[in-house]
Amino acid sequence: MEFKYARRMEHLQASEIREILKVTERPDIISFAGGLPAPELFPVEEILNVNRIVLEEQGTRALQYTTTEGYAPLREWIAERMNARLGTSFDRDNILLTHGSQQALDLSGKVFLDEDDVVLCESPTYLAAISAFRAYGCKFVEVPTDNEGMIPDELDRILTSTDRVKLIYVIPDFQNPTGRTWSLERRKRLAQAAMKHQVMVVEDNPYGELRFEGKALPSVKSFDDIGCVLCLGTFSKTFCPGYRIGWIAGDKKAIEKYVLVKQGADLQCNTIAQLEIAKYLELYDIDEHIERIREVYRRRRDVTVKTMEEVFGPDIEFTRPQGGLFAWIELPEHINSRDVLLKSLEKKVAFVPGGSFFPNGGKENTLRINFSNMPEDRIVEGLQSLARVINEWADIS
Amino acid sequence: MEFKYARRMEHLQASEIREILKVTERPDIISFAGGLPAPELFPVEEILNVNRIVLEEQGTRALQYTTTEGYAPLREWIAERMNARLGTSFDRDNILLTHGSQQALDLSGKVFLDEDDVVLCESPTYLAAISAFRAYGCKFVEVPTDNEGMIPDELDRILTSTDRVKLIYVIPDFQNPTGRTWSLERRKRLAQAAMKHQVMVVEDNPYGELRFEGKALPSVKSFDDIGCVLCLGTFSKTFCPGYRIGWIAGDKKAIEKYVLVKQGADLQCNTIAQLEIAKYLELYDIDEHIERIREVYRRRRDVTVKTMEEVFGPDIEFTRPQGGLFAWIELPEHINSRDVLLKSLEKKVAFVPGGSFFPNGGKENTLRINFSNMPEDRIVEGLQSLARVINEWADIS
Repeated sequence: MEFKYARRMEHLQASEIREILKVTERPDIISFAGGLPAPELFPVEEILNVNRIVLEEQGTRALQYTTTEGYAPLREWIAERMNARLGTSFDRDNILLTHGSQQALDLSGKVFLDEDDVVLCESPTYLAAISAFRAYGCKFVEVPTDNEGMIPDELDRILTSTDRVKLIYVIPDFQNPTGRTWSLERRKRLAQAAMKHQVMVVEDNPYGELRFEGKALPSVKSFDDIGCVLCLGTFSKTFCPGYRIGWIAGDKKAIEKYVLVKQGADLQCNTIAQLEIAKYLELYDIDEHIERIREVYRRRRDVTVKTMEEVFGPDIEFTRPQGGLFAWIELPEHINSRDVLLKSLEKKVAFVPGGSFFPNGGKENTLRINFSNMPEDRIVEGLQSLARVINEWADIS
Repeated sequence: MEFKYARRMEHLQASEIREILKVTERPDIISFAGGLPAPELFPVEEILNVNRIVLEEQGTRALQYTTTEGYAPLREWIAERMNARLGTSFDRDNILLTHGSQQALDLSGKVFLDEDDVVLCESPTYLAAISAFRAYGCKFVEVPTDNEGMIPDELDRILTSTDRVKLIYVIPDFQNPTGRTWSLERRKRLAQAAMKHQVMVVEDNPYGELRFEGKALPSVKSFDDIGCVLCLGTFSKTFCPGYRIGWIAGDKKAIEKYVLVKQGADLQCNTIAQLEIAKYLELYDIDEHIERIREVYRRRRDVTVKTMEEVFGPDIEFTRPQGGLFAWIELPEHINSRDVLLKSLEKKVAFVPGGSFFPNGGKENTLRINFSNMPEDRIVEGLQSLARVINEWADIS
């Protein structure tokens, strides 16, 4: 039969990344396309141990339903860590556990967005945030963004001239896809603009703990005096993504609404995962673990940046991320990175074309490079191949 | 600040059940209010074993991201089991794993419902399905329902006279909240009506495996020749709810749309949970395990029905479920079960008032009894107390 889908389905397409990832699962492909953490760093032994302890000590509880809000000791730990690292002042009732921070994006759309509401975002921005919000029929306005973050005058101009702005979505630390980090000044200015215009900010921070150098900057939330900033976090990058445990933190009144929509969406997060992470945090030193991750990713970032400096000509620009998983490449304007991808796949190298990170289209000459998931020699080899493909392309076009 | 929520938030309220459950967590309360499986039946030892094996054999894979569709061997197992039990003909590409079957309800709303679309449902129906669908701004029309299911002539009349019917939502086996099971004839007639009017059916089946007597009936899906029936299932009642692994099965074109919305909603289910359930199914006999659950619940059902027959007067009606977790009580019309609840909580007995299971309100004289989660002596004691409260109430009112 002809299915009559909801109107929102017209705008939804398969994620280009997921489609590319399917092609690149073959081990002979050097893939810069994913956003996967390095699996060799997962604390498998420790997880075996905490799993045994949790099941032996409170097996029936771990396998039963639990509250929508999530396991209280874990929410407490999250609140304390955010307060220490990000200058917030949360307690456990400010925190709702979510099925990965992706779910926190979806719930944000559900709580705040009516059809034709407007979401402001960086340009470019995280692809899966675009699809999460788009499912609620919103429009996107991309705020002009440079290496320091959204440009404040542009943000203010857009907020003043645009009706129905409901959310401002940002990733201030080691942004996906660009790897950029917002300056202190820009964080302050964003919070001020949001307070002035009474607009909610969704501050997504999956990579903040993965800083390779320099000093951590305070969150946008730390400059918020009226409860307009909601913070997203996750254990996917500092622990393991397979658990699907993230969170949203913010004003208690707003969090109560999130709890309501999560009840309807999926009742609660996986109980065992919550108890296991809490037990891990009790028994082990996660800072030591994160330091190991940082060390490995830092070396991979170093080799990525160094190789790009060696192999790319002066007409190719790229970011030098201070942390996170991604770097961003801008080719000469006449080169379309989707065409480059087809050629580079022939050479067994994959990446994600940058165009889809712009919700309203454009900048087809960009591409995203993930550097967290491959040994250094493969990174060098892959970037050398990629450079050859790009140079050939530049010559013939 | 004053938060500007989406319009849908006006209709969402805290689930009455979850609020009552918070009160009834005290161990001195005899609670018929939840829908919890009996935790003493969870296969904790076996799960300890499969967890160890999965982490030792493929730890890094178990902790990493995976596909949105879910672990292929598990989807294959589900397809084969449904085909054997429910007369369907699915393969793994008909199946999407969801974060509990609750998520399959939410995704169904997202895939199919625009604001003011109509969902037909049994009267009464599952509370959390109401909140899942309501988040998409739909309206509900309750189809008159008797002990055999929706009344076909009424269904046909409503389908003929109502614009914008997008979904028909049903729980044909041991329904929540009533415990009723649809007859074979009614299943056929529902499928015929849906095909005739080209409307999608969401056939929710969380309890079907928990049949205490009699022969399993074919699914509504088995009478569907055009792909208009989607089937929901879950491991929550036959294995453990803490894992949050359910599924939706149906026409491949429709399932592809579900995959798209799940990508935006939360990327994927918990990876370890998927691998562990698959390993459990490989190493152990889940039929033996389900038979143990059935045996315990059957005895609890027996004692529940027998006690209700003894303690309730002739003006109180109740269902005698052939399976599942719930029975349904209908008091004389002038008694409001919310008032009864306040009194019975004083006697340390809790249940869920039936009113909220009617999406458009009404029938405040009904209540739902869960019998799966308590030893037999507590069931008897609780029902005796409840009967005393109701009789006192009937006397004074």
